[in-house]
This record gives sequence, structure tokens and C-alpha cells, in this order.
Amino acid sequence: MKAPDPRAGRHPGRDLIVIGAGPAGLSAAISGARTGLKVLVIGEAFGGTLNLTDRIENYPGFARVSGRDLSQKLEDHARGYGVDLLIDRVDNLVPSEEGFRLAAGSKTFRSASVVLATGARPKKLGVPGEERLSGKGVSYCALCDAPSFRGKKIVLAGGGESAVKEAVYAAEHAEKIFLINDEKSLRPAGGVRLQLEKLAAAGRVEVINGNGIREIEGKNKVAGVVLKKPHRGKNGLEVAGVLIYIGVVPNSGLARGIRAEISDRGEIMVNRRCETSVPGCYAAGDVTDGGWKQAIAAAYQGTVAGWEAFNYCRRAERTRAGLE
Amino acid sequence: MKAPDPRAGRHPGRDLIVIGAGPAGLSAAISGARTGLKVLVIGEAFGGTLNLTDRIENYPGFARVSGRDLSQKLEDHARGYGVDLLIDRVDNLVPSEEGFRLAAGSKTFRSASVVLATGARPKKLGVPGEERLSGKGVSYCALCDAPSFRGKKIVLAGGGESAVKEAVYAAEHAEKIFLINDEKSLRPAGGVRLQLEKLAAAGRVEVINGNGIREIEGKNKVAGVVLKKPHRGKNGLEVAGVLIYIGVVPNSGLARGIRAEISDRGEIMVNRRCETSVPGCYAAGDVTDGGWKQAIAAAYQGTVAGWEAFNYCRRAERTRAGLE
Repeated sequence: MKAPDPRAGRHPGRDLIVIGAGPAGLSAAISGARTGLKVLVIGEAFGGTLNLTDRIENYPGFARVSGRDLSQKLEDHARGYGVDLLIDRVDNLVPSEEGFRLAAGSKTFRSASVVLATGARPKKLGVPGEERLSGKGVSYCALCDAPSFRGKKIVLAGGGESAVKEAVYAAEHAEKIFLINDEKSLRPAGGVRLQLEKLAAAGRVEVINGNGIREIEGKNKVAGVVLKKPHRGKNGLEVAGVLIYIGVVPNSGLARGIRAEISDRGEIMVNRRCETSVPGCYAAGDVTDGGWKQAIAAAYQGTVAGWEAFNYCRRAERTRAGLE
Repeated sequence: MKAPDPRAGRHPGRDLIVIGAGPAGLSAAISGARTGLKVLVIGEAFGGTLNLTDRIENYPGFARVSGRDLSQKLEDHARGYGVDLLIDRVDNLVPSEEGFRLAAGSKTFRSASVVLATGARPKKLGVPGEERLSGKGVSYCALCDAPSFRGKKIVLAGGGESAVKEAVYAAEHAEKIFLINDEKSLRPAGGVRLQLEKLAAAGRVEVINGNGIREIEGKNKVAGVVLKKPHRGKNGLEVAGVLIYIGVVPNSGLARGIRAEISDRGEIMVNRRCETSVPGCYAAGDVTDGGWKQAIAAAYQGTVAGWEAFNYCRRAERTRAGLE
């Protein structure tokens, strides 16, 4: 018997296209390419939401690393395995006879498998200063950034479950938190609400209902906010940070297009193997319902997705080559 | 209303004791301590099975790092958050009225919560040279080490599902693999067996049933093996690597002692939150049934376990303080 042709049954396009160049996407690329797959990553920006955070302290192995530095390390790691990277937006993804077809701008691509690592975007307040001071006191992640507000006064915008939960968490670090809620009262009840009320009674949290942020001020870092209505006779608050918890929007449009199963929250549903409901389509990171919205979770899920894409490609090749 | 005493309801011992100082345990410690928990890690050796591997290339962010270096980074990261580390073996773990009691040597400890990150040990062949050349060509992880055998001949010891699967994977890298199986035939059937047979037909894999390794030879790195019986008229094989896949043994003895649910394979059963069946007891890494046996998986699970231990401690404190 002769040796099988190593390219027998191999897909004519890429083995794997990863959509998204944040930690989930780059980790999927590393994992897939390491097994020998031909991998292309198409993302709108390297690093994704990593870049929102000045300092990451909860990615084990990096005691302190900037989002941009971690992103660079992941990119270098992927390039070291011969991964091709393209900065572009994928406009279209469709299943084809032997995998998937993608369009990004004027280019089209084919691949045997895809990993969707398109992330989620935090809902923005949409006020002056927010974008400019993002990562400089304006944050969308208390777990990431609250420790850097130790002993300082901050504002937290939001009134839902996660806002209240994160306010309680942030109170472990910040000296005082102004919780600014644009509704008449806070939505959560139960334990977390009680905790918040205890913190409020202790003067650690001040809940300001029926108000909002008009502008975030500061030159190179947050110095304060201007409120929509005066509070205790003042138009604003002097604070060192603004945490924004008014929800996130998973970037699951491409997944919807191929009819992958989507959760009530708009996340792509995955199992432990990062499989979506569409064969050959895997998903990882913040766009999924699969775990924590943290870089280490994205890296882990991406690694799993890349490995499972490898297994999928090999099974498909064997089928095409008539081996099974 | 007065401010609650910040120590009200706080557990008199540690908030969290992590058992095991590999990537799962150190990551749990980082995650727990970062939220403000008082954390102690007790482990038999820093790094755990990380130290079995000379080079790790699939931990996203580190293109190439030695097991010992990654372990050192994790240790430094944990120490940076004030985690206490003790190198010792935990001999006893018992649930107590307010959490857990532990004994390590002559010392005893109390904690509100525990994370079991005790890892798994690969089954050893138990032959001369194996221990001495471990990490120098002797490996228990094809995924970790097969790429370093590119273009070389190696031996893979084992005949079960994982041995055959890993032989197929290793054949993506190694020039030739001698699969040495001490039984009369290979156990797996189906697709993976077919793949192996195609590789065998192509001369990429040679299956040697009913034989075994008597000794592993080499001065500073593996140079060959001595077989139990002659093969093709020779007493041994010249190879650059020996992959050993004869099973692993999860170190789940402490978990069994507190009657945590254990899988058929001896692993501690955990859900996505790394909860075991015992309240306040979490588990992460290779000792669990929760995922891949890789450093990145351990780091992720440890991070989740530390965070969930924090949530558990805060709930327990509120109960003790009469807040809920």
C-alpha cells in the first residue's frame, strides 16, 4: 500500500478562517496553526476589546500588562506559526458545499472551517469625553479596572443587575462610588440590592436615581463628570473614574446569518468544545454564551476552538479522500 | 445607619486555601487574592506538571516559554497579590462547621473555602532512564512536545485510545513513530484506528505489538530505547523521543475524602463554575473532568474557581453577619 498523499482530500481554500483578532481569535489561530492548519485571521483591529483596558492584571502569567502589549504578544505568537492576518471587516459569511465562503471588502475567501471570535461591544453612553478618556479612567469592566481606583471616588453608570453587582465589587476597592441610574429606581432586588443598601448606609455608595452623565471631563485622565441635572446643588462630581455598565452587544450578526443558535442575550451558543449548532463553525470569546468575559477565558476558548477546528478538518479530509 | 464592620462575618481562618501550586492552583490564588480574599496555597512543588515540559508553545501570549519559567511567572504574579505559599503535602482535608480544616505535616489550617488543584500524574513506565530523561525527549504530552520531534524518529508507548490518537497527531510532526504496545493488538477501533493503519501502510508508523520498553537510553537527551524482546533482529531502537501514553492518575484522594463527586476516570466532577458537589469546594485543572489537560485550560479554570470562591466567601460572610 502506498503512502497517502498528504494533500489528499485537503480543502482547496484555507483550512480555517478565524473572524476576529482579539484574544479569542488570535488564540484560535495559534492553536489551529500549531496543529498544521492553514489559517487566516480577518479582524477589524488587533486586540479587540483588550485595547479598552490600560492594564490587565488577571491574565495568569502576566502580573501586569497593557491590553495593547498582550494583543501584540498574541499577534506575534500567531505570526510565529505562519498565520496570515488581514485587517478588514467580514461583510458576508455563507456555508458552501465544502465549508464556508466569506467576503471582506472586495475580496472573497473559502475555508473548510471557521471560528467566530467577533466579540461584544459595550454599550456606550455616547457623551463627550467618553471615547477620548476610554482606558484613562473610563472603563467598561469593573473586574479589570476597579483595583486601580483604590482609595478614589468614582462614578458607575447603570441601574441593572450587572451595574449593581459591579458597584458592590468596585466598593471593595474605591473609596466611594456614585451610582448614577437614569431610571427612577434600581432594578435588582435580593441579596445584591441589600448589599448595595448596606454600602449606601455606610456612605460608601451614593445612589443617584433619575439622573445621567452629560459629559466626562479630564485632560489626560478622568477628573470628573457633568450631570444632566444638578445634584446637591452642584452640576457635576469630581471623580477619578467612570465605570459604564449599561449592557453589551455581542457581535453575532454573521452567526445569525448562517442560522447558528443564538441565546436570548444575543450570544452565540457553544458547548464545551466551542462547537456552534453549525457543523464546521466554532465560536470563542465574548461573542459566546460560553463563559466569563475576560481575556483568559477568550484565550482558553480560542485554543479549544482552534483544536476542534483541526479535528473537524481532518475528519472532512478523510471523508473527501475516501478514507472513511 | 452605621457602616458595617468590614470584618463582620469574616471567617476566622483564611478565606481560601488552594491545594496545588501548578497553573490551576496559582491562577486560582491570583484570581481570589485579586478580589481581596486572604489566600494560602499549599502545594508539593511549584509548577506541578508544567515542569515536565521543557517548552510550552500553546499558552497564548507566550510564543515559547519553559514550564519552569511560566511557573515562575505565575508564582510571582500570585505573590504580587500577597498570596502566601507553602511547599508541603496536604495530608488531610475535612469539612468543618464554618468551612474546612486542613493538615499539612504538623501544621493545621482553617479556611472558608478551598480550591482543589492537585493535578494528575501520568502513569510511568517505571524503567531506567525514564525519570532522568523526562523533559529531555521523554514526554507524556504529544500536543506539547510532538512539534519538537519534527523530522525525527520517536517511540510512543501505549495501545489505548489516547495513545493511538496521539500517535496520529505526532505523525504530523515526527518522521516515523514506533508504537510499542504491550498487548497483543491495539484497543481502539473506528476512525482513529483507520488513520493509524493508513499511516502504518505508508511507513510513517510501525506498530509493534506484544513488546515493551526495558530501558531508555541517552546522556543528556533521549538517544534510543532497549526493548523487552528483539525486534527485526535488534535489541533496541534509535529514537530522539519517547512519548508515554499509558494513562494518567488524577490526584483526587482529598476530594474523595470529603465525598466530592468523582467521575469514572477518577476526576473531580465540576460544572462551568468549577463548583464540585461540596459547597465551598472548587476544583480546577487536570484533576477535574472540566476540560483539556493543558496549561491554558488550567489557568482559565483556576481563574474561574478563585472568582467563584470569592462569591462563596462573600455570601457566607453575609450569612454569618446576619445581613441575609
